[in-house]
Amino acid sequence: MAERLIVIGGVAAGMSAAAKARRTQRDLEVVVFERGSFISYAACGMPYFLAGDITDHRELIVRTPEQMIAQGVHVRIRHEVTAIDAEARTVTVHDYERGRELQLDYDKLVIATGARAECPPLRGCGLDGVFGLRSLESGLAVHRFLAENKPKAAVIIGGGYIGIEMAETFRRLGIDTTMLIRSGIALRTTIDEDVRKVVHAELERHDVKLVKDAPVSFDGEGKVEAVVTEGNRYPCGIVMVGVGAAPNVELARAAGVHLGATGAIATDASMRTNLPDVFAAGDCAEALHLVTGQPAYVPLGSTANKQGRVAGENAAGGNAVFGGIVGTIVVRCFDLAVAATGLTADCARGLGFEVQETTIQAKDVSHYFPGAEDIHVRLVVDADSRMLLGGQIAGKRGVAKRVDVLATALYNRMTIAELGKLDLSYAPPFAPVWDPILVAANVANK
Amino acid sequence: MAERLIVIGGVAAGMSAAAKARRTQRDLEVVVFERGSFISYAACGMPYFLAGDITDHRELIVRTPEQMIAQGVHVRIRHEVTAIDAEARTVTVHDYERGRELQLDYDKLVIATGARAECPPLRGCGLDGVFGLRSLESGLAVHRFLAENKPKAAVIIGGGYIGIEMAETFRRLGIDTTMLIRSGIALRTTIDEDVRKVVHAELERHDVKLVKDAPVSFDGEGKVEAVVTEGNRYPCGIVMVGVGAAPNVELARAAGVHLGATGAIATDASMRTNLPDVFAAGDCAEALHLVTGQPAYVPLGSTANKQGRVAGENAAGGNAVFGGIVGTIVVRCFDLAVAATGLTADCARGLGFEVQETTIQAKDVSHYFPGAEDIHVRLVVDADSRMLLGGQIAGKRGVAKRVDVLATALYNRMTIAELGKLDLSYAPPFAPVWDPILVAANVANK
Repeated sequence: MAERLIVIGGVAAGMSAAAKARRTQRDLEVVVFERGSFISYAACGMPYFLAGDITDHRELIVRTPEQMIAQGVHVRIRHEVTAIDAEARTVTVHDYERGRELQLDYDKLVIATGARAECPPLRGCGLDGVFGLRSLESGLAVHRFLAENKPKAAVIIGGGYIGIEMAETFRRLGIDTTMLIRSGIALRTTIDEDVRKVVHAELERHDVKLVKDAPVSFDGEGKVEAVVTEGNRYPCGIVMVGVGAAPNVELARAAGVHLGATGAIATDASMRTNLPDVFAAGDCAEALHLVTGQPAYVPLGSTANKQGRVAGENAAGGNAVFGGIVGTIVVRCFDLAVAATGLTADCARGLGFEVQETTIQAKDVSHYFPGAEDIHVRLVVDADSRMLLGGQIAGKRGVAKRVDVLATALYNRMTIAELGKLDLSYAPPFAPVWDPILVAANVANK
Repeated sequence: MAERLIVIGGVAAGMSAAAKARRTQRDLEVVVFERGSFISYAACGMPYFLAGDITDHRELIVRTPEQMIAQGVHVRIRHEVTAIDAEARTVTVHDYERGRELQLDYDKLVIATGARAECPPLRGCGLDGVFGLRSLESGLAVHRFLAENKPKAAVIIGGGYIGIEMAETFRRLGIDTTMLIRSGIALRTTIDEDVRKVVHAELERHDVKLVKDAPVSFDGEGKVEAVVTEGNRYPCGIVMVGVGAAPNVELARAAGVHLGATGAIATDASMRTNLPDVFAAGDCAEALHLVTGQPAYVPLGSTANKQGRVAGENAAGGNAVFGGIVGTIVVRCFDLAVAATGLTADCARGLGFEVQETTIQAKDVSHYFPGAEDIHVRLVVDADSRMLLGGQIAGKRGVAKRVDVLATALYNRMTIAELGKLDLSYAPPFAPVWDPILVAANVANK
């Protein structure tokens, strides 16, 4: 009899695992349970769906249940796995469609339960108009609310990626936008101060009010009417809470799956958990950070897809290895792209590194070429080993793929002297003769 | 008494050497002889100056003689070094301004004589309207000719970077443009066939007539009127010859400087030639190609600047090392960017590698994001070691800096499996969740 793989969660990691497992072992029975109504969607596209760049939410869906079934993967949406019995190798599933419970045994199990938007447990948190953004359902709810209520003012809680992206979305929709950030600092854990200034200036340029403040409650009758802080009251018709993602680990933990120090599921490089034949991948799991050598929790779609594929291949008898992360991210902030990889100087110092920091401003293409724009490159270097520890870039163009050069350098543990020697592409429309990365490396290397 | 450094040639490598030497050793006397009228200019910008993107040729000048003199570097334009006596440590210089000869002794010498546009020795080569493009003087001559003659038709000889860039320039000026390429193939030595097809299509889309043919003579009375081939005659008002660059090595060779197998000046990693205290850098010199391990001749501004800096630092008593090249290039072809690094499959096979080739087509940003465009990525892999040997990318956006990721991978001798594991940046406006580089690597790794 064929073996059965059960995958819990049908978005990025889960669906990657299912598809890869099926391709790896053609006679494997693959069943995916997804508690929501959608599978395999690009959650990261939601701010642009809400802004109207993408008119139909179905464009965000990579694969439908029907397409997966055609590939031989059984997909059950609105089915929530409520318990795992690792001893008996069974899962208990609640079918929301028919209101019934199922029990199914597995040979291999992939846990890909994702993460949820964290929400501070404040009074009024459940008011209509107070949103987090993570699942496609949450995005559709915001979309519907915006259409029906046409709010004039929005408050964003938090200054992370979601906060930044939603600030852009709200402003493009003509909504007055206030960001309440406890530290008063956008992208605090992602970029250091001098690059952050460029981000703050871009937010201000687009009339986003950035306030150092934190909510104590949400006011309103049924619908949110204001965010209340210790000293202030911010009237608004919609609230977006973007204070981070929390891994959905309750199901796994109850089954005896070990969590790491980050609170997400601990795995080895093959994405195996401590339980036999139980894998975990994506936003519910940790990833090895190659710069620190420690597991980290950086829930991103790119990592989820990679981990899912590794888990799926190995669940199907393969021998794949997840290569780890270096913490590369990029976010659009209006006309600006902001990207980072590796460690910030603050973080590196916290880990005990003696840090050297270099920030340069240069032009993104040859200075004489029409439309040359400023680009800011910051490098974080280990003063002892002279190894690159991290980098941050902000500018209008050529940011995301420049940070990828730094990510590749981190992967290869390059020193700053080596970085300055790279043979990077040059032509006036695309880069200066000394690419800003080389300029930064050469300044850092002095 | 202070030592004297003489630098022969005042463009990219020469001026980098002079400036760096002066910064390294403040009491060094630095004298630069440049036979032309301009120093320190960005020759690569000339096609865009001719197209009208850059309105004043002075914008291409990075540093004027006056600025260099203010930095303590003596610059003599219209001074040609006509002989080097390595035994006596002197140079003979012809001063075109005053029509006299000088002799000057040196302690250190940097040869940065650059390259010239190769020209086939055909009848009519000297006609007015037959141009190569290398020095700023040559660019200004084309500019003047275009303004005075307003040619309706142009013929470009050769399908390299200059040919491609000038095809764009001529078409943007409304000039009928025919490219005569002996092989019929644009960028033949830079990219392999499947990416080349994308380039050919872009040229055709912009009405550039690409013809497999080669000139036997240029026809005209004083001014060029047609290019004549064995079977055809191509009437035209201007001809641009772009069949390659030839290193200016005659002066060095006559002085006993060794040339490499490529015909350019051979140096070690410190940019020293075989003669004591004589360095060479830039378009007249070879560069170590890190993929082949052999010296190569790839005359580019980016390499010239790096080599010049190393030569200058070492001439001033430093201990710098030129890090070698991997052959990274990028060229704009109308709306397309075309980039390559490392070896083409053809070249790798010629060197005895057993080659595996992979070409993929993907979207440059998330497929659902407005304006997502096709991007083509080709990887050349050593079938034995599974190491990346080269890569080629063509597309409208995100090409130049994506090829830099491959250049960084080559520098670090990454395998294709490692390449597929990189933590590259992802956000819908900038890249798909699987960056095209990862897609290509994963396909190649199957």
